[in-house]
Amino acid sequence: MVAKDALMTWDSVFSPIKWDAGRLVLLDQRLLPEQEVWRHYEDATDVAEAIRKMVVRGAPAIGCAAALGLAAAALRYPDDVEGFNRALMRDIELLKQSRPTAVNLFWALEHQQLVARQALEELGADAAKQALEQQALKIWRDDVASCRAMGRLGAELIPERACILTHCNAGALATGGYGTALGVVRAAAESGKQIRVYADETRPFLQGARLTAWELHKSGIDVTVSCDNMAGALMQRGEISCCVVGADRIAANGDVANKIGTYMVAALAKRHGVPFYVAAPRSTIDLGTPTGAEIPIEERPSREVTHIGDTALAPEAVGVRNIAFDVTPAELVTAIVTEVGVAQPPSEQSIRALMD
Amino acid sequence: MVAKDALMTWDSVFSPIKWDAGRLVLLDQRLLPEQEVWRHYEDATDVAEAIRKMVVRGAPAIGCAAALGLAAAALRYPDDVEGFNRALMRDIELLKQSRPTAVNLFWALEHQQLVARQALEELGADAAKQALEQQALKIWRDDVASCRAMGRLGAELIPERACILTHCNAGALATGGYGTALGVVRAAAESGKQIRVYADETRPFLQGARLTAWELHKSGIDVTVSCDNMAGALMQRGEISCCVVGADRIAANGDVANKIGTYMVAALAKRHGVPFYVAAPRSTIDLGTPTGAEIPIEERPSREVTHIGDTALAPEAVGVRNIAFDVTPAELVTAIVTEVGVAQPPSEQSIRALMD
Repeated sequence: MVAKDALMTWDSVFSPIKWDAGRLVLLDQRLLPEQEVWRHYEDATDVAEAIRKMVVRGAPAIGCAAALGLAAAALRYPDDVEGFNRALMRDIELLKQSRPTAVNLFWALEHQQLVARQALEELGADAAKQALEQQALKIWRDDVASCRAMGRLGAELIPERACILTHCNAGALATGGYGTALGVVRAAAESGKQIRVYADETRPFLQGARLTAWELHKSGIDVTVSCDNMAGALMQRGEISCCVVGADRIAANGDVANKIGTYMVAALAKRHGVPFYVAAPRSTIDLGTPTGAEIPIEERPSREVTHIGDTALAPEAVGVRNIAFDVTPAELVTAIVTEVGVAQPPSEQSIRALMD
Repeated sequence: MVAKDALMTWDSVFSPIKWDAGRLVLLDQRLLPEQEVWRHYEDATDVAEAIRKMVVRGAPAIGCAAALGLAAAALRYPDDVEGFNRALMRDIELLKQSRPTAVNLFWALEHQQLVARQALEELGADAAKQALEQQALKIWRDDVASCRAMGRLGAELIPERACILTHCNAGALATGGYGTALGVVRAAAESGKQIRVYADETRPFLQGARLTAWELHKSGIDVTVSCDNMAGALMQRGEISCCVVGADRIAANGDVANKIGTYMVAALAKRHGVPFYVAAPRSTIDLGTPTGAEIPIEERPSREVTHIGDTALAPEAVGVRNIAFDVTPAELVTAIVTEVGVAQPPSEQSIRALMD
């Protein structure tokens, strides 16, 4: 166990990320809720591996971790411009290969590449190192500020007494801090609304049962875990006021890629007239992807489905699918909440307006 | 491991139930797929506990196990009419309390009560013991025959090449043998159709990953396990030809109570124009229950959700819901397949016609 103070960042917001004198430090989310273990990184290969293996996960958190991880690695690059540049391009490529769906990763790395190359050309390697560190810290800080702003805007959509269903973890743990979907939950609770949360357990990685339950409980917000397949029964019984989820990538037309099972929740919400909200920073919106059909969807190793720890849940030798994300068509989304405004309903027009 | 022969019954159909010289023998389904352990029962309290703890599960199998369990217990009742009758009524009550949703349990026990009391009044305790044993074996044999008949009728609905999604386990393991939904799958495969099956893992008890995958793989039918929340993505990609599931109780209007998550599959199937079939014997149809709203829905212990073996999946002290069944409205069901015919679409009229 780590003392509570150690979990705080400069912003006094709980964050799964720390920056420790030129090293990236990540809370190993695979071990939650049973253990709180922090791991140090200074090499891009290790950071890419941490992203792939889901030590850190959640689109905004992956963006922050990649930016900070690249900055940490760059502090160890050669001081000659050519050597620096070669190492930079290699590490950016490495990090880009870690996971395909969340666009924040690519967004953060492209921003880092731009700023580093400009500093490198104009002022040399030392300046590029500083620029990468400064911008990474800014990306992280801005992400938390975005979550706060999303929270304020999103909380206005939440009734005074609400039972909110969320899927996966789009919380402090999935971001620089505070959370996107759970940022909305937090802001609603902080504004005095009576909030209860149903957390879908979110198979196979159990982000809901392990992470959302852990961080909401820690924050004193009433949280109940249920299996993903219970969402329909809960809505049939009228127990859900609204759904709030995060996003890994939002296409130009408002289609939303998010953790597998999100589409199912949205389809059920539509059937039951339950509002379905997506909270995500603008760095999640990818105008270069016209519709959800063009979003690359990761499939992950079968062992995540067939095993919990060392316990086998299925016979060996049977086939397994582990589709990590699905696409919720814009027509099922009541509103998309960003840090600068709300697209309601989401459409090519309303989304473009947020980006301008 | 038990030799394959030992798993066979008189019908050369794999069954999770055996009758061993006046004792009920059940395959402990909680231990599959890792271990095949058979347990012997001769006391109604133990049988009720086995049903409650899901040593045996699946509506038709519960009916068979209750009938045989009562017959085994009755062999040990006193020989005086009054003592026999007292013991009989106590054990029927005990067994009825074991699980509330599946109606086959009540159906089987009511049939047993009728036949026992008639024999008791007319011929005495010995005759009642024989009558209970003979009728229990008949209920079991009829259940297998029903599954075979359902299989034949249901197989006609399946395309020549089909990828069938199923939820939970409505297979040999859930019945006297052969299976309801998986009986349809088996019959389609036996008739030469090219059948692949997607088995929803079916949280929290994992009947799909553990049981459906186990028995289909054993039978040489191509089976792939996926998480419950992946059904939507599979349908979005056009990978599912049709859905076939079982039922725990069917109301007079065609509403279907089945394992939690069935409703979600049906709602998604409707959205994607994928046929959604329910296979169940007539003993599952309860004309005394007008609609799904009147079906009692069991909620089970939270530990089934929060733990796999001894591994905790969620923080202690958070709330947990474990709703065991949901209700799929008749409007989402393409057809109900029984042993005597197909209700397509299900309606009060088409269902009553099957029962007459």
